[in-house]
Amino acid sequence: MRRTLTAILGLAAMGAVMLPVAAFAEDTVSAGQFFANNVWMMLCAGLVFIMHLGFATLESGMTRSKNTVNILFKNTFIISIGILTYALCGFNLMYPGEFNGFLGFAGAGLSDLASADNTAGYASGGYTYYTDFLFQAMFAATCATIVSGAVAERIKLSSFMIFAAVFVAFVYPIAGSWKWGGGFLDAMGFYDFAGSTLVHSVGGWAALVGAIALGPRLGKYTKGRMNPIPGSNMSLAAVGVFLLWLGWFGFNGGSVLSADPVLTSYTLVTTCIAAAAGAVAAMTASWTLASKPDLSMSLNGILAGLVGITAGADSVSLVGAVLIGLVAGVLVVFSVMFFDRIKVDDPVGAISVHLTCGVWGTLAVGIFSMNPEHSFLVQLAGVAVYGLFTVVCAGILFYGLKATIGLRVEEAEELEGLDLAEHGGHAYDFGGSTRGFEDELPLGARRVSPAAATLATE
Amino acid sequence: MRRTLTAILGLAAMGAVMLPVAAFAEDTVSAGQFFANNVWMMLCAGLVFIMHLGFATLESGMTRSKNTVNILFKNTFIISIGILTYALCGFNLMYPGEFNGFLGFAGAGLSDLASADNTAGYASGGYTYYTDFLFQAMFAATCATIVSGAVAERIKLSSFMIFAAVFVAFVYPIAGSWKWGGGFLDAMGFYDFAGSTLVHSVGGWAALVGAIALGPRLGKYTKGRMNPIPGSNMSLAAVGVFLLWLGWFGFNGGSVLSADPVLTSYTLVTTCIAAAAGAVAAMTASWTLASKPDLSMSLNGILAGLVGITAGADSVSLVGAVLIGLVAGVLVVFSVMFFDRIKVDDPVGAISVHLTCGVWGTLAVGIFSMNPEHSFLVQLAGVAVYGLFTVVCAGILFYGLKATIGLRVEEAEELEGLDLAEHGGHAYDFGGSTRGFEDELPLGARRVSPAAATLATE
Amino acid sequence: MRRTLTAILGLAAMGAVMLPVAAFAEDTVSAGQFFANNVWMMLCAGLVFIMHLGFATLESGMTRSKNTVNILFKNTFIISIGILTYALCGFNLMYPGEFNGFLGFAGAGLSDLASADNTAGYASGGYTYYTDFLFQAMFAATCATIVSGAVAERIKLSSFMIFAAVFVAFVYPIAGSWKWGGGFLDAMGFYDFAGSTLVHSVGGWAALVGAIALGPRLGKYTKGRMNPIPGSNMSLAAVGVFLLWLGWFGFNGGSVLSADPVLTSYTLVTTCIAAAAGAVAAMTASWTLASKPDLSMSLNGILAGLVGITAGADSVSLVGAVLIGLVAGVLVVFSVMFFDRIKVDDPVGAISVHLTCGVWGTLAVGIFSMNPEHSFLVQLAGVAVYGLFTVVCAGILFYGLKATIGLRVEEAEELEGLDLAEHGGHAYDFGGSTRGFEDELPLGARRVSPAAATLATE
Repeated sequence: MRRTLTAILGLAAMGAVMLPVAAFAEDTVSAGQFFANNVWMMLCAGLVFIMHLGFATLESGMTRSKNTVNILFKNTFIISIGILTYALCGFNLMYPGEFNGFLGFAGAGLSDLASADNTAGYASGGYTYYTDFLFQAMFAATCATIVSGAVAERIKLSSFMIFAAVFVAFVYPIAGSWKWGGGFLDAMGFYDFAGSTLVHSVGGWAALVGAIALGPRLGKYTKGRMNPIPGSNMSLAAVGVFLLWLGWFGFNGGSVLSADPVLTSYTLVTTCIAAAAGAVAAMTASWTLASKPDLSMSLNGILAGLVGITAGADSVSLVGAVLIGLVAGVLVVFSVMFFDRIKVDDPVGAISVHLTCGVWGTLAVGIFSMNPEHSFLVQLAGVAVYGLFTVVCAGILFYGLKATIGLRVEEAEELEGLDLAEHGGHAYDFGGSTRGFEDELPLGARRVSPAAATLATE
Repeated sequence: MRRTLTAILGLAAMGAVMLPVAAFAEDTVSAGQFFANNVWMMLCAGLVFIMHLGFATLESGMTRSKNTVNILFKNTFIISIGILTYALCGFNLMYPGEFNGFLGFAGAGLSDLASADNTAGYASGGYTYYTDFLFQAMFAATCATIVSGAVAERIKLSSFMIFAAVFVAFVYPIAGSWKWGGGFLDAMGFYDFAGSTLVHSVGGWAALVGAIALGPRLGKYTKGRMNPIPGSNMSLAAVGVFLLWLGWFGFNGGSVLSADPVLTSYTLVTTCIAAAAGAVAAMTASWTLASKPDLSMSLNGILAGLVGITAGADSVSLVGAVLIGLVAGVLVVFSVMFFDRIKVDDPVGAISVHLTCGVWGTLAVGIFSMNPEHSFLVQLAGVAVYGLFTVVCAGILFYGLKATIGLRVEEAEELEGLDLAEHGGHAYDFGGSTRGFEDELPLGARRVSPAAATLATE
Repeated sequence: MRRTLTAILGLAAMGAVMLPVAAFAEDTVSAGQFFANNVWMMLCAGLVFIMHLGFATLESGMTRSKNTVNILFKNTFIISIGILTYALCGFNLMYPGEFNGFLGFAGAGLSDLASADNTAGYASGGYTYYTDFLFQAMFAATCATIVSGAVAERIKLSSFMIFAAVFVAFVYPIAGSWKWGGGFLDAMGFYDFAGSTLVHSVGGWAALVGAIALGPRLGKYTKGRMNPIPGSNMSLAAVGVFLLWLGWFGFNGGSVLSADPVLTSYTLVTTCIAAAAGAVAAMTASWTLASKPDLSMSLNGILAGLVGITAGADSVSLVGAVLIGLVAGVLVVFSVMFFDRIKVDDPVGAISVHLTCGVWGTLAVGIFSMNPEHSFLVQLAGVAVYGLFTVVCAGILFYGLKATIGLRVEEAEELEGLDLAEHGGHAYDFGGSTRGFEDELPLGARRVSPAAATLATE
């Protein structure tokens, strides 16, 4: 007897869980399609989940090592609080069912197993209720993570945690309901396939407001010049970008909302082509401008292409995908330079990647879409509405925190690094191998070999 | 002509490999469902595989850099020997078919392609024989990996390798057969969906025995106080925990043993909710107790929630999942403090995560399960049986090794670090760029630029 | 209203995208199977994609930290230019349809959405046209990445970029067409399931030519002895190898070209068993030879087993898989020693892993295949043809570049490290926390705590 049998007996005992196989006769999809669709969507949720590791490593790698623990702590918090608040209220704010188009709420919490509609009738056989929640929850947390990169290395931990919790619980879901929840922007014909605007520019606007509210890091802009503060771990940053690219297979591929073979595979092709074009364009642009091949810019070029293609990955032509990526790759380089010129300090380039290229991608749908119903002006209107709403909300949050509990750490703490100041420890220690017990050991043990002696003095 | 055609011709030539399509008429699942089920299960095997990278990076990150090579070597060995021994005997010990309920063995080695039952009839269409083996083999190796974290930084490499090989080849499969193989605990009604007890507490008990048999690391407990030994690479530790969370999509999601849309998606939701709740609870508990936000504890909180939900991920309510995660997150913090108080040195907190929370999760099934057949007392009995068996087996192994070839490295080696002492090298070198050939080059070449000069003196 | 409905309406508006459900009646696969097949193949493409991160981290970890940015930049370039050139010409060179068996070309660029055949009729329901492109594109870029490891730490960036672009755009696809495109080697009965020869030995031969054309790194072979140059980040190298193993689930599993439950699961089992056997064999061989357990060799043993099984993963017996892995694991150790003896400097062992074991794996099909049509002599002929062609092409490219723009960096740049010399920065900085703004701050701020003072002096 195998686990199977036990599991099936257990399943039978639960009764309500049993899948109504008969139901498929009335549906447009077969049981096999429903199973395949749901497998795809669950795995896409997993891929979007791994984007949180991508952001955590990218941000840690592109900032100084004295703030690494702080960044990792924030990213651990965001995904955790994001899932919990999205279950509590976010999901039902974003998908309230029939509503006034501006604000709706389907009630607190998720449906339990007995009452949830997990049949193939729930979403035309694309996935179950629980898969729907999981996939959308991973998206929601992504939006808040974008902000964390731009405010890194100087924001007060508790203030950021409050911002992130409110942003993911209320701001993102309400904004999302206007399009994906079937609200007024959806009715207007605004199109955003997987979130160039709904996720990336919303995150990017909030990042911009946060970076302005905080001001630049100490020493970043001095005596009229910009001092580059290079990342402390470029391998980790590269790991982050490759994981984000992989995650985008789920971010865009899952936004088809089924495993439809044509649309999913076409979406993955436009996504990968735009990412590749973004990288090559950013390499070329930054190499030309700075006479050096720049790894950070190349990595951001990949992300620029990915953010750019996200709004129209299912509906632009292949040539459109290449052009969207190329333009995004050039844009991100100039955008980084622009924000440095106006002294908005964004340690990882999050504003340029997510806001600039998010806006570009959304407008690009109006240019390159094969669907004649997509309109440039409506896209522009959508971009403006999301910008206005997010700037107001993020402004209230960031400046409200600044006026009350404070937004920025003390100068001394920033200098020392947030890891030691807020967390009491460092992220890295590649030296001290004998810490804490030198006085406990007989002297002879410490002299055992030249190598040990060397280590002991480190 | 494409690869397809060639492949199909090759396939036809093999004859025996052809899938008996006609067979589906008699089965309860369609060919499409069988394909989707098997795809899901293979990918879940891949996700559990990646947990081995998660453990390797978590353990490397949370220990000192002088022992990193040693830890990576151990983890490379475990997955490799684990797969080989599970093929040789583990799989057939764990799933012996009809047996006496205590010990059975279906023979050495795996069935070959001609004789293996890979039809939809094998496991009600959930997966093939080979997928079954692969998924279970990845689980088996996981169990041994848990131990490696607790015994890190002081165990003798060869002794650990012997322990790991025997543990994964015999102890885990025999213990597993009692429940998942249809043995006496399964007959008693004990429930452990994906292995809070069968995998995690079994690994955790062995970790406890190993840590006691070894004693604490030099300098850990001195003059009546506990000296924290912080990890050397917290980015790597965070990478590990996020990969483990991702891997749990397969660990729990695959334990449904098919791609049943309702059960798999529900399982993923309870899993992610418990992980998030565990993180938030551990953050809160450790912040309250230590007045500092602690990254290690937050990461362990995620793992605590994951281990806790594993026994009942398919059968507890959503509220139950939140509570299981919250309690696990608090438990892991107190458990780490407890084991430090009784001077059981566990460098990565493996005992607290896998044993304490594994036991909690198993008992929690008796509290929060929606299935009335699950009983708290039976769960308690199962926990006790697995604890007793594992402690005896691990005790024999660890104390047997201690009495013969020795369990712990020399003091001098421990001080020097296992990397240099056992492997002859270090894991990290972020300085010396000119090592080994200074005397080969003309002096001028070494003075080429200020930067090179700086590097040369590092 | 949910995203689903919107998406479906959008889909309907596009017309041409709609999947012809009726078509399935005439096909051999059901819609469910087609969906599941395509999901599997898309995810396999994602898994092969992640191999590029595996190579990037493996190569960065196994080389010196002064060249890490350079390696990451190269790997970012390869995947990007690889996808673009494969779309532009590679795909249609490799799969030209009916052709003369030596060279064919189906025209520039990919088919657009309206004209592409994405029905289940395209590839017997295994996947769509776009999935086909994506999966093959990820393979193509892999081939060029193999080379980058062997030429690391001394090749001129621009020269490598030219080589990589031409190699992936023309050399690999033309070579590939001879077997997978249905060319003359396919007609001869040559068998290479997933590319031990077509991908790995082709990459490996080019790596060998590149390493010879470049010569060894400064200081590697001096005064008649070989100076080991250890890797700078073994954790990163281990991350790379585990990711490569995971990627191989897609590399081999996807080469079934459908989700056929029997063939895919059998392939994954032989793949994992060979990897495990390779690791154990390389551990044993290197431990015996060097009296130390060697992590690098163990990791290369995994890769050796994986490369070895790739040619016959679907057609050798289980015992054959074990033997292929064991032999590969021993071979890689002796091969590394051999290339060091003849002073071919390969910083990561790429030639030994991909060429030596790629050849072994291809010949092993002639020994262990269960398919009587596979012949050792034909396998040998295929190996020779690919070797000859690749050596000639890579020779023209590498020596052509050497004679024109130059292949190797200046001695001074090599000493300084390529990161500073070519990219103007370092990959790692775990110290300097106050760089760039010491003179901007009041003195008191710099003395805020002993910890900060310590950091300031680092």
